[in-house]
Amino acid sequence: MASAGNKPRKASVDLPFDASLGYQVRITHRAFQRALQNSIAPNGITSGMWWFLRVLWEEDGLTQRQLSQRVGMMEATTVTALNNMEKAGVIRRVRNTEDRRKMNVFLTARGRTLRDELLPLAAEVNAVGLRGLSKQEVNQLLVLLRRVRVQLDEGAADN
Amino acid sequence: MASAGNKPRKASVDLPFDASLGYQVRITHRAFQRALQNSIAPNGITSGMWWFLRVLWEEDGLTQRQLSQRVGMMEATTVTALNNMEKAGVIRRVRNTEDRRKMNVFLTARGRTLRDELLPLAAEVNAVGLRGLSKQEVNQLLVLLRRVRVQLDEGAADN
Repeated sequence: MASAGNKPRKASVDLPFDASLGYQVRITHRAFQRALQNSIAPNGITSGMWWFLRVLWEEDGLTQRQLSQRVGMMEATTVTALNNMEKAGVIRRVRNTEDRRKMNVFLTARGRTLRDELLPLAAEVNAVGLRGLSKQEVNQLLVLLRRVRVQLDEGAADN
Repeated sequence: MASAGNKPRKASVDLPFDASLGYQVRITHRAFQRALQNSIAPNGITSGMWWFLRVLWEEDGLTQRQLSQRVGMMEATTVTALNNMEKAGVIRRVRNTEDRRKMNVFLTARGRTLRDELLPLAAEVNAVGLRGLSKQEVNQLLVLLRRVRVQLDEGAADN
């Protein structure tokens, strides 16, 4: 990536959607989000809330900023999602007593209960995606995705 | 998916991030977005504009709604992205003369020129991600992702 710079390049590069791994990963990601959304919507939860719940089920009480980092969303997006989650009664925000600028996010009893309702649905979405793939193919897919991701992050670090 | 319903389930389901394909696809998608963002930012373009440009380079003059559908973004997100793209001087919006409710989106000369500057950078991001993978592995990755995506879409259609 260090060589990407602004060097003149020949103008005839083509990158058909079919051959673009970035594009293929993107539309697979969207298919997962759609399937998850369909699956969890009857519980009053949207896919926009999903990853925040996932993180809070592991680590309750994180600050807004920590949540935003774990989930990898902009803080503005995080605030919108948390507002919706508060309205839905699954979290509450508590001002940090040691640092008044910080807000800690806690699951409500309802938010905690959701784990046992929703995680099986997410597991089922995964199972649908993986239907018919052999154990070896699933493993290969996970290994290849990880290799791609590590290389992208290393490439980015070179910049 | 038809069986997902609201049936009671046993509460002990676990779905570790490492084993969740949905999660792995999501973080790979984010790694691509980050790498692309780093690569194209010097040209004044953000990853939020990227897929709209990609689509317009193929089909100039689409309406806002069509663009929103092709890219798979909510219309509100599309409007925000298009506002930014207009400010950056890469598109202009023209009210449709036959249906005044519609807006058509056209690339400016600058927007068209960007294709030859940015597409090689995107191709390079893809190349970084695929570094060291054999042709067979790349092909397998694309084939497996497609199988997963088709199954997710079919599963969703069952609901």
